[in-house]
Amino acid sequence: MAPDVNFDFQRRERIGLSEAVFCLGKTPQQIGEAIELAQAHGVPLLLTRLAPEAFATLPPPAQASLDYDPSSRTAILGPWHPPVGEPVVAAVTAGTSDLLVAREALRTLAFYGLPAREIADVGVAGLWRILKHEEELRRYPAVIVVAGMEGALFSVVGGLVRGVVIAVPTSTGYGAARGGETALHAALASCAPGVVTVNIDNGYGAACAAVRVLGTHVRPEVSERASAVRTE
Amino acid sequence: MAPDVNFDFQRRERIGLSEAVFCLGKTPQQIGEAIELAQAHGVPLLLTRLAPEAFATLPPPAQASLDYDPSSRTAILGPWHPPVGEPVVAAVTAGTSDLLVAREALRTLAFYGLPAREIADVGVAGLWRILKHEEELRRYPAVIVVAGMEGALFSVVGGLVRGVVIAVPTSTGYGAARGGETALHAALASCAPGVVTVNIDNGYGAACAAVRVLGTHVRPEVSERASAVRTE
Amino acid sequence: MAPDVNFDFQRRERIGLSEAVFCLGKTPQQIGEAIELAQAHGVPLLLTRLAPEAFATLPPPAQASLDYDPSSRTAILGPWHPPVGEPVVAAVTAGTSDLLVAREALRTLAFYGLPAREIADVGVAGLWRILKHEEELRRYPAVIVVAGMEGALFSVVGGLVRGVVIAVPTSTGYGAARGGETALHAALASCAPGVVTVNIDNGYGAACAAVRVLGTHVRPEVSERASAVRTE
Amino acid sequence: MAPDVNFDFQRRERIGLSEAVFCLGKTPQQIGEAIELAQAHGVPLLLTRLAPEAFATLPPPAQASLDYDPSSRTAILGPWHPPVGEPVVAAVTAGTSDLLVAREALRTLAFYGLPAREIADVGVAGLWRILKHEEELRRYPAVIVVAGMEGALFSVVGGLVRGVVIAVPTSTGYGAARGGETALHAALASCAPGVVTVNIDNGYGAACAAVRVLGTHVRPEVSERASAVRTE
Amino acid sequence: MAPDVNFDFQRRERIGLSEAVFCLGKTPQQIGEAIELAQAHGVPLLLTRLAPEAFATLPPPAQASLDYDPSSRTAILGPWHPPVGEPVVAAVTAGTSDLLVAREALRTLAFYGLPAREIADVGVAGLWRILKHEEELRRYPAVIVVAGMEGALFSVVGGLVRGVVIAVPTSTGYGAARGGETALHAALASCAPGVVTVNIDNGYGAACAAVRVLGTHVRPEVSERASAVRTE
Amino acid sequence: MAPDVNFDFQRRERIGLSEAVFCLGKTPQQIGEAIELAQAHGVPLLLTRLAPEAFATLPPPAQASLDYDPSSRTAILGPWHPPVGEPVVAAVTAGTSDLLVAREALRTLAFYGLPAREIADVGVAGLWRILKHEEELRRYPAVIVVAGMEGALFSVVGGLVRGVVIAVPTSTGYGAARGGETALHAALASCAPGVVTVNIDNGYGAACAAVRVLGTHVRPEVSERASAVRTE
Amino acid sequence: MAPDVNFDFQRRERIGLSEAVFCLGKTPQQIGEAIELAQAHGVPLLLTRLAPEAFATLPPPAQASLDYDPSSRTAILGPWHPPVGEPVVAAVTAGTSDLLVAREALRTLAFYGLPAREIADVGVAGLWRILKHEEELRRYPAVIVVAGMEGALFSVVGGLVRGVVIAVPTSTGYGAARGGETALHAALASCAPGVVTVNIDNGYGAACAAVRVLGTHVRPEVSERASAVRTE
Amino acid sequence: MAPDVNFDFQRRERIGLSEAVFCLGKTPQQIGEAIELAQAHGVPLLLTRLAPEAFATLPPPAQASLDYDPSSRTAILGPWHPPVGEPVVAAVTAGTSDLLVAREALRTLAFYGLPAREIADVGVAGLWRILKHEEELRRYPAVIVVAGMEGALFSVVGGLVRGVVIAVPTSTGYGAARGGETALHAALASCAPGVVTVNIDNGYGAACAAVRVLGTHVRPEVSERASAVRTE
Repeated sequence: MAPDVNFDFQRRERIGLSEAVFCLGKTPQQIGEAIELAQAHGVPLLLTRLAPEAFATLPPPAQASLDYDPSSRTAILGPWHPPVGEPVVAAVTAGTSDLLVAREALRTLAFYGLPAREIADVGVAGLWRILKHEEELRRYPAVIVVAGMEGALFSVVGGLVRGVVIAVPTSTGYGAARGGETALHAALASCAPGVVTVNIDNGYGAACAAVRVLGTHVRPEVSERASAVRTE
Repeated sequence: MAPDVNFDFQRRERIGLSEAVFCLGKTPQQIGEAIELAQAHGVPLLLTRLAPEAFATLPPPAQASLDYDPSSRTAILGPWHPPVGEPVVAAVTAGTSDLLVAREALRTLAFYGLPAREIADVGVAGLWRILKHEEELRRYPAVIVVAGMEGALFSVVGGLVRGVVIAVPTSTGYGAARGGETALHAALASCAPGVVTVNIDNGYGAACAAVRVLGTHVRPEVSERASAVRTE
Repeated sequence: MAPDVNFDFQRRERIGLSEAVFCLGKTPQQIGEAIELAQAHGVPLLLTRLAPEAFATLPPPAQASLDYDPSSRTAILGPWHPPVGEPVVAAVTAGTSDLLVAREALRTLAFYGLPAREIADVGVAGLWRILKHEEELRRYPAVIVVAGMEGALFSVVGGLVRGVVIAVPTSTGYGAARGGETALHAALASCAPGVVTVNIDNGYGAACAAVRVLGTHVRPEVSERASAVRTE
Repeated sequence: MAPDVNFDFQRRERIGLSEAVFCLGKTPQQIGEAIELAQAHGVPLLLTRLAPEAFATLPPPAQASLDYDPSSRTAILGPWHPPVGEPVVAAVTAGTSDLLVAREALRTLAFYGLPAREIADVGVAGLWRILKHEEELRRYPAVIVVAGMEGALFSVVGGLVRGVVIAVPTSTGYGAARGGETALHAALASCAPGVVTVNIDNGYGAACAAVRVLGTHVRPEVSERASAVRTE
Repeated sequence: MAPDVNFDFQRRERIGLSEAVFCLGKTPQQIGEAIELAQAHGVPLLLTRLAPEAFATLPPPAQASLDYDPSSRTAILGPWHPPVGEPVVAAVTAGTSDLLVAREALRTLAFYGLPAREIADVGVAGLWRILKHEEELRRYPAVIVVAGMEGALFSVVGGLVRGVVIAVPTSTGYGAARGGETALHAALASCAPGVVTVNIDNGYGAACAAVRVLGTHVRPEVSERASAVRTE
Repeated sequence: MAPDVNFDFQRRERIGLSEAVFCLGKTPQQIGEAIELAQAHGVPLLLTRLAPEAFATLPPPAQASLDYDPSSRTAILGPWHPPVGEPVVAAVTAGTSDLLVAREALRTLAFYGLPAREIADVGVAGLWRILKHEEELRRYPAVIVVAGMEGALFSVVGGLVRGVVIAVPTSTGYGAARGGETALHAALASCAPGVVTVNIDNGYGAACAAVRVLGTHVRPEVSERASAVRTE
Repeated sequence: MAPDVNFDFQRRERIGLSEAVFCLGKTPQQIGEAIELAQAHGVPLLLTRLAPEAFATLPPPAQASLDYDPSSRTAILGPWHPPVGEPVVAAVTAGTSDLLVAREALRTLAFYGLPAREIADVGVAGLWRILKHEEELRRYPAVIVVAGMEGALFSVVGGLVRGVVIAVPTSTGYGAARGGETALHAALASCAPGVVTVNIDNGYGAACAAVRVLGTHVRPEVSERASAVRTE
Repeated sequence: MAPDVNFDFQRRERIGLSEAVFCLGKTPQQIGEAIELAQAHGVPLLLTRLAPEAFATLPPPAQASLDYDPSSRTAILGPWHPPVGEPVVAAVTAGTSDLLVAREALRTLAFYGLPAREIADVGVAGLWRILKHEEELRRYPAVIVVAGMEGALFSVVGGLVRGVVIAVPTSTGYGAARGGETALHAALASCAPGVVTVNIDNGYGAACAAVRVLGTHVRPEVSERASAVRTE
């Protein structure tokens, strides 16, 4: 029988991002097959949405090969080592319950070698909490904002900083929060110009977008043209 | 044939608010019948959602009897005179397009004799605009916040003031603003405690709620018990 | 690593309401961290949506420090004692299944020192049940109405009393009740003027709104101006 | 070319109800074709949703053959004459704006020879208005309740009478009324047992349901009239 | 503490239907309290949505007092005995999976003393199955049609019979069946005139509507049985 | 400036269907540009959703070059001539108001040279109308069923014929018909196996699907294998 | 008591497809009853959505009589044998998580004797994967495309092949994937002409549609007429 | 009376983007007030969603001061001149009907001095059209993709290029396209990693996001750190 997995190994070469394994809804066999395939090709691999219970059902050799982090529900198959140095991206959360998603973003950034900064629990009901970080936030080329409920933090940050503001609506909340849809719509309908958004709870996607943003820095001829524009 | 209108004239006596005429979807004949009925009983009457084009189709005597205000699309049939004195309620708007709704609230308050304050175009994308009014806003027992799009202003005001925060989501915006539903859900899912909301574009209802809030001041025995609680 | 919790301790001073811990979706560690933080600052703390099963997973010292009430799924960390005296708010429910939400409101009011009255199972299919309490209900400056299914009780109470009517739609019902959305929309589209609403099942928020309403009584200069208006 | 209209002339014989012409979305030619077809077969015909502007575009002979009523937007092609005698059905409306729909129901009942009673503008915000009619309403085997906005009237009537309660949700209202969906859901999720509902604004359908109910009735004088209807 | 349950014992006298206990979302204590209250008043009681697992958690004396039927998830507290004689209502299902709901209707009819007929698994994909019963179905004053998925059976039956057609949409199906909403909308938008509908999966409500219909019936033998029900 | 239109002229060669011009939302200039482009390449062109008012705004030479049919709102730019011979596809409609959509399908089939049969106004409320055509319908390899409201006709036809049943839900109806969504969901959740569907009001797409079905007949080697299967 | 199951055994004769048993929501008794009924009639039977846990609860004789395949969650009751020969249909999936649904389609095709080809994990993010199969795909009269998330694969395949493209949207994905609705809407709104769709996760239905497509090959007179059209 | 407009003039200094005037829903007076305010401060101003009919209602001096472009419905109040040089951003559209939105993005980029490239009508049904531009597209740090209907183009481009892919879903299409929601959900649920999205039809917002992306090039210290990461 044909294999269930058909990796797009050229993706990193082509677009700077490699295929990751979204574990929810996959069998342990399918996850194991993916790990073996990556090992056979000698490439690192990121696994997301891998709950502790699911990690425990993987075959022991697969478990042993992974650097597993329960607080972000991600696992990394090396060769890989955590980035060091000054953070180049910030991930800000509105509440404590948004941390799981923010940490998925932070681990993804780490997988791509980008050091990043976590700023937690700074929702707008106590506005001084985010304003305290205004100066620092203005230094980052990309700020990931993670918020559920009404998602007011997206607009507040979008009105404070110059960098790319990547909203990650989360499913935090109940009732009218509608499993993250209200925060999603808030990001899309934001009164702050140029805020962009990714799917609900998609910390991984926000980090990938940040990688795309950061990647533009390596093309000097674009940099030159654009900076001419921006310094007027 | 029986009349189309069957006023609940006891309402003001019973709950402190009289029946108003919502003009959208009523024929000029039905609106005229309502005006005559009020005149016959000698009671003042508030008409809402009366667009200039609709006002122009009313019979001339009806037009002459009304104090019409196009900026709020309301008309008042006297006996009535505008309130004077220090404002006891504030109506804050996120954008210029929210003014029509805010002014419906302000006219309704005026109909009930309550002087009020308008603070316009202070959306969160430029946070300094609302923060400039923080001190003043903290003085009102009720603040009506009128906002469309993502409705972030509800939570920001809800985190700044002690008074009752009455959110009026508006249909300002497009796409993911969903005709006011996103702002409505934002008010309901607000991270600021104790924010309440009324229907989309319902400036009239917000003002009625403020009348209910203000009405509690006249019952000294409640005031006494509650202030004992609050001054701890 | 930075802490997961970043309390807004100034909130009570600023708006008269302190930050509460919404326990759903938080780990026992995060809840424990919040309790320790409050203890370290010597401030009382309210915990909501804490199911008996979740309470049982908290560390024993945390459990011991809390006054836990399973019928409202709330816990209170003192210093605190239940209010005494005449009730200043009423909480009315349409059915027996709405009691959990009503009791969350009642416990929140108690946390803020406000004595309140519970009136249970008075839905409109047997109209005499609510009419029996009409006289009493008209005495309260704020009435919290808790109803699921079609939420008809909001409009009926809104047409009977002068005080602020705070609707709490509940997820009681099935099918077209749509998990509370129908009751929510009924509150928003109510034909009774000035009814306000909070999120589905949000007994806590309704109580916070009532605290805001009651808090207005302590500002005599507003009281004076408003009562002049209302006694005409 | 084949005709556009293919009448089910056997329907009245088969189920006691004949095919009606829903005019919205049909061309004047198609409506004219239907009228001619009925005339050729010598059977009466009911036309619904025929706005005055649309009536005016019909060919003059078609116009002349019809008994047109703008207040219900219906037309009847005879042989037919209005029913006389005691009403056997009541149609109750919550507000003035619901009258158009109620009158569609009343005209349909009249087309089938059933005398009926209109009770207008008795919404629950002024509860005394509907309670005034309680005694009378309890006498009808079927009560049609027409209400938009939050549709609370369905449950209130459903808890007062023994007869079949047929809810007709209307598109009256705005915002959270959602074009009639909230009233529709309120009818379906009603706490009063055995309330049934038809489509939004479907006065015609409610009357057809009442015809089905009456077709099976005990009271001899009604039975007689009703069976006259059913046996023709 | 006040009791959680506040029965409307006058309901049967008033509208011919007594209050039932919807068990979903109620605690065993609350269900037990309801049973004791009914026993104390000596009135029969119907309990719906009582899954076998929930029945097993009731206190043994409560269990012993009930006539429990797992195939309809209902229990009856007597004095009561099953009706005998010719059926006066039919309950038709589109598929096998709709039987649970149909049997809730049949048991409710039985509780009110009405003998009824079950016709199962006659969906329109094999049209001969329902046509085989056409003659019989035309004899009933009320036909309850229970269908999920696309709900085509409502319109087919509505076009075949004279009696009241009460649609019960069910949550049978997946995806575009949307948990019963598609069948519900199909009932409401039916091309057959005078079809009425109740909430999704609401077999109980359909039966209550049939009781209201039967309460007004011509056929003397039914009249007698029905009036026996109505006068007790 | 670059042209607005960039035709995929290879499409007919590649998949047997050429690019059509959907006129809604296009300016007369853009439509004119498309016509000129097709003329320059000497290929026939189908234009859909071209209302009479829009046709009248086209430049006169463009108008003169088109074979315009208002009953289907389509225009054809030749070289082209209507097909003759026995019909190979049938298009069935539930009601008169569905004819516009059915005729879009018929014209598209004609554009591709396929003769087809129209069977109008055979909705299920009068079941005999469709059953009269059962024998004939069973002969077609593809049957297009066009229905709005509750879309019950899809399942009835799907249970009667062997050919491919292509459902076209229409926006006919109001309220719970939800602009065609109910019929769409009915097609998708149909109890008849193997019914397929296209977008609401998409007569064009249904015809294209029929072209794909009919196109399979020209590949004898497939025909042979499949017929071996089917004749067992 | 009447049986719960009422098979439409004439269906295969009538439309070429036999009734299958959708096991979700049926009791083991009902499934067992269906198997016995088919055995009694000596006809083969397909069972779908039979999870391993549900299979294990069937009575042992029923289990023994079935050819169970966990990877598609289907079981077949013979007489039956797997088809051999060149594939006549292809089933393509966007991702690994879509395989369960694709295999339901493949097993259904096998049940009807049609050999088919699986092409897995060829989503558009790595476009070369599907383009590699372009030549082969163009040979099939029907291609089943199975995709969740954004469902872009439907349009890409629809633009590449001549055969009938049957989209099966899946519930793969989260958040804005909305349980398969986004993929479903993508199939319906596809820019590729003539793509048809079935319900979310409905591999069975897609296969039935393919059987209908393939079945058209056995009617030579249609084949002849159509091929005349298509070879122009 | 207070002015209706309260500009956030510090915004450009603070975040690199100035406040624009969204003209839909504003009166000519309010638009005129905004223009005068900008003139008084001597700052350039961008006006969006200004239809030709609305432009014509502006006071003549306001009209004369603006550089109006009907193809994008934007106007610019100078001092300003169009950018020259090599494009640094591309805007790609799926169809001709998406051009209006794409041109709003292009004008906004021009307002900020960024030259950009338009690539029109390259939807995936004819895949060769976008693949022809693959090489060029890979050179841009940001690619704006404008697509309605099923929005498949977002994922295809997202799988081809390294730069930031900013999806702009449009309201092009009908029925299941749901006014742009399907394309929006497709962007959010895209299988291509790191695609970000803005509101439906929000060409302006997409351009603002691109300005944020391009702005990162002027901070050399970030550039350095990030390029170290990306060149591994």
